Amino acid sequence: MPTEPGSVNTLIVYASVKGYTQRMAEAHAEGVSAAGGHPTLKTCEEVSKEDLAACDALILGTPIHMGGMDWRMKRFVDTVCAPLWQKGVMTGKAGGVFASGGGYGDAGGGIELCMLGMFSNLAQLGVVMVPLPPETPGFAHGGTAWGPYVRSQAASKAYLAPDELPLTASRSHGRNIATLAECLRQQRIFAH
Amino acid sequence: MPTEPGSVNTLIVYASVKGYTQRMAEAHAEGVSAAGGHPTLKTCEEVSKEDLAACDALILGTPIHMGGMDWRMKRFVDTVCAPLWQKGVMTGKAGGVFASGGGYGDAGGGIELCMLGMFSNLAQLGVVMVPLPPETPGFAHGGTAWGPYVRSQAASKAYLAPDELPLTASRSHGRNIATLAECLRQQRIFAH
Amino acid sequence: MPTEPGSVNTLIVYASVKGYTQRMAEAHAEGVSAAGGHPTLKTCEEVSKEDLAACDALILGTPIHMGGMDWRMKRFVDTVCAPLWQKGVMTGKAGGVFASGGGYGDAGGGIELCMLGMFSNLAQLGVVMVPLPPETPGFAHGGTAWGPYVRSQAASKAYLAPDELPLTASRSHGRNIATLAECLRQQRIFAH
Amino acid sequence: MPTEPGSVNTLIVYASVKGYTQRMAEAHAEGVSAAGGHPTLKTCEEVSKEDLAACDALILGTPIHMGGMDWRMKRFVDTVCAPLWQKGVMTGKAGGVFASGGGYGDAGGGIELCMLGMFSNLAQLGVVMVPLPPETPGFAHGGTAWGPYVRSQAASKAYLAPDELPLTASRSHGRNIATLAECLRQQRIFAH
Repeated sequence: MPTEPGSVNTLIVYASVKGYTQRMAEAHAEGVSAAGGHPTLKTCEEVSKEDLAACDALILGTPIHMGGMDWRMKRFVDTVCAPLWQKGVMTGKAGGVFASGGGYGDAGGGIELCMLGMFSNLAQLGVVMVPLPPETPGFAHGGTAWGPYVRSQAASKAYLAPDELPLTASRSHGRNIATLAECLRQQRIFAH
Repeated sequence: MPTEPGSVNTLIVYASVKGYTQRMAEAHAEGVSAAGGHPTLKTCEEVSKEDLAACDALILGTPIHMGGMDWRMKRFVDTVCAPLWQKGVMTGKAGGVFASGGGYGDAGGGIELCMLGMFSNLAQLGVVMVPLPPETPGFAHGGTAWGPYVRSQAASKAYLAPDELPLTASRSHGRNIATLAECLRQQRIFAH
Repeated sequence: MPTEPGSVNTLIVYASVKGYTQRMAEAHAEGVSAAGGHPTLKTCEEVSKEDLAACDALILGTPIHMGGMDWRMKRFVDTVCAPLWQKGVMTGKAGGVFASGGGYGDAGGGIELCMLGMFSNLAQLGVVMVPLPPETPGFAHGGTAWGPYVRSQAASKAYLAPDELPLTASRSHGRNIATLAECLRQQRIFAH
Repeated sequence: MPTEPGSVNTLIVYASVKGYTQRMAEAHAEGVSAAGGHPTLKTCEEVSKEDLAACDALILGTPIHMGGMDWRMKRFVDTVCAPLWQKGVMTGKAGGVFASGGGYGDAGGGIELCMLGMFSNLAQLGVVMVPLPPETPGFAHGGTAWGPYVRSQAASKAYLAPDELPLTASRSHGRNIATLAECLRQQRIFAH
């Protein structure tokens, strides 16, 4: 018997400097709710080991700095996530990542290594990783295979207002991850 | 109503030069069977688009050459997988990767980029990616967060016989991926 | 006393499907010539171990397929480069990479892992790696930190003609690498 | 006329938790001195923009946490390095990376993504990147193509004392980078 979707808790941990990543985090939360799940939004400075233990899914989002995640996100990884390594606290939960950045150079400015850095965190914790399929609505203007990416500069190279960002892919990603979390909660895939 | 586990088809595609990766592929197949699933083993030269369309899960394994997958595996990616891009044929299926290599330098000899190259293929096709949790039996002697890795050289730097390889982690990985495939078949996570 | 620049030989190895990467390779060759060097253009199917042994610098370029280099480029890596591993044939030479691709998703479609795959090849051979500094002319429309990237689709999502590609960054990159090769030839940095 | 080697300044920036990375940093400094250069050792918490502006070469070293650099190193990247982006302050200098870690799983525990994260920083600043050739003395017990790696656990899985670490490759790497810096100071490769 399926459990009630509403009881699936998706934790969205983000860093944000100018508001872009926060806006993406909110769009992920909207997607989680649309799937009948319960989203919890926390900045990487607020989140605790207890928050991680309590969640069914974990989504990480960050601005890109020099081809990697924001240092405050990495501090969360080192000080909150790393102590859970080999403890099995996160093993078999669902997860995914997203990021925002200026995108100077027209190819994402380090977006892939940044996202793979967060994937590495998820993988080390045993989290099942959700990609962003290319047929996802909104992918053409804000997608990578690793998750939603929002370019904070328009083609004109002026910065967008955070509320002008294309956020469709973020909503889909949040919904997909929450749906997987529901599925995984019913069947512990590593529980052998 | 759950479908019968036996009908879940896990396709294991591998390249092998000296027999190490083939032996790992077989261990993955053993794990798939242990989960009640049906494994299909194919070399990257045998596999077809129809094999991909018919599977519920896809596992890719390769020897490491110069920090990347075997060129025959990449030919499979370019000629068999790439035409399925944006077609949704693989979207929402389960997947994972493994690799083998000499490991000169005591740190894996390019194992991470090699595995991430195959993850990139899975992600581009919309496949949900299964990590190898560090608490998996056998991880200490053949694990990375991205999947099982078998060092084909002993500490003495002599090559092992393929049947001496530590394969425990490979069996677990096959079983975990087949279990996720069962779960995903019942609930299409991207089917919104 | 500096040797004559004209005698520095820069080998540019590329794969090309629709002509974009070939056009970039030619622009790199123009840059090499502008530095007073001698460019040799070869497809990855033409190049031999002797070509590698004879060069002072090696530049690799490829179309992006599924987040990685073209399989014919990987075959070159596995069958022509790998046998030179640990032989010191390439150690201390100069090198760099470039790539082209559609860029669906507005973030490069796997460009970073693709370029890092070729960097891995260079690093394994002991080649000193030249980045593309962000202040390089043309970077804004075709640059990544790892090397020039040309998006073969316009914003309208129509494919460009190969001769419409922005190639300025490619010329600078070729020139920079040939200049480093001149410098390295005079002072073998690993020759201790 | 060559400048005096002694005036070439190589800045080694490191984070260290248990002393392993510090010991590697010191071995790099020994190599720099052996090449006739001047090493400056700073922790990532001590180093300033002025230190970066004054150096001819930059070497970054870190412990590995969850497949990435220490968060304090990332804070240095975000707050000290990032403001120099596009300023040309570091463009055309020499650089390289190293790391240490337990290496659970027998494949480096995230060593590659960790080192590539620091390479990304170097590349974004326009720094010419020095690999560790496989024929370097000491490579077999502490090398990756991206730079020296020291496993802080012995095969017995007990932690080594920092002074038991194999540091030969670190000395060679420091020497090679300082030698390249000397070469690059005489010929600005991006100064066109």
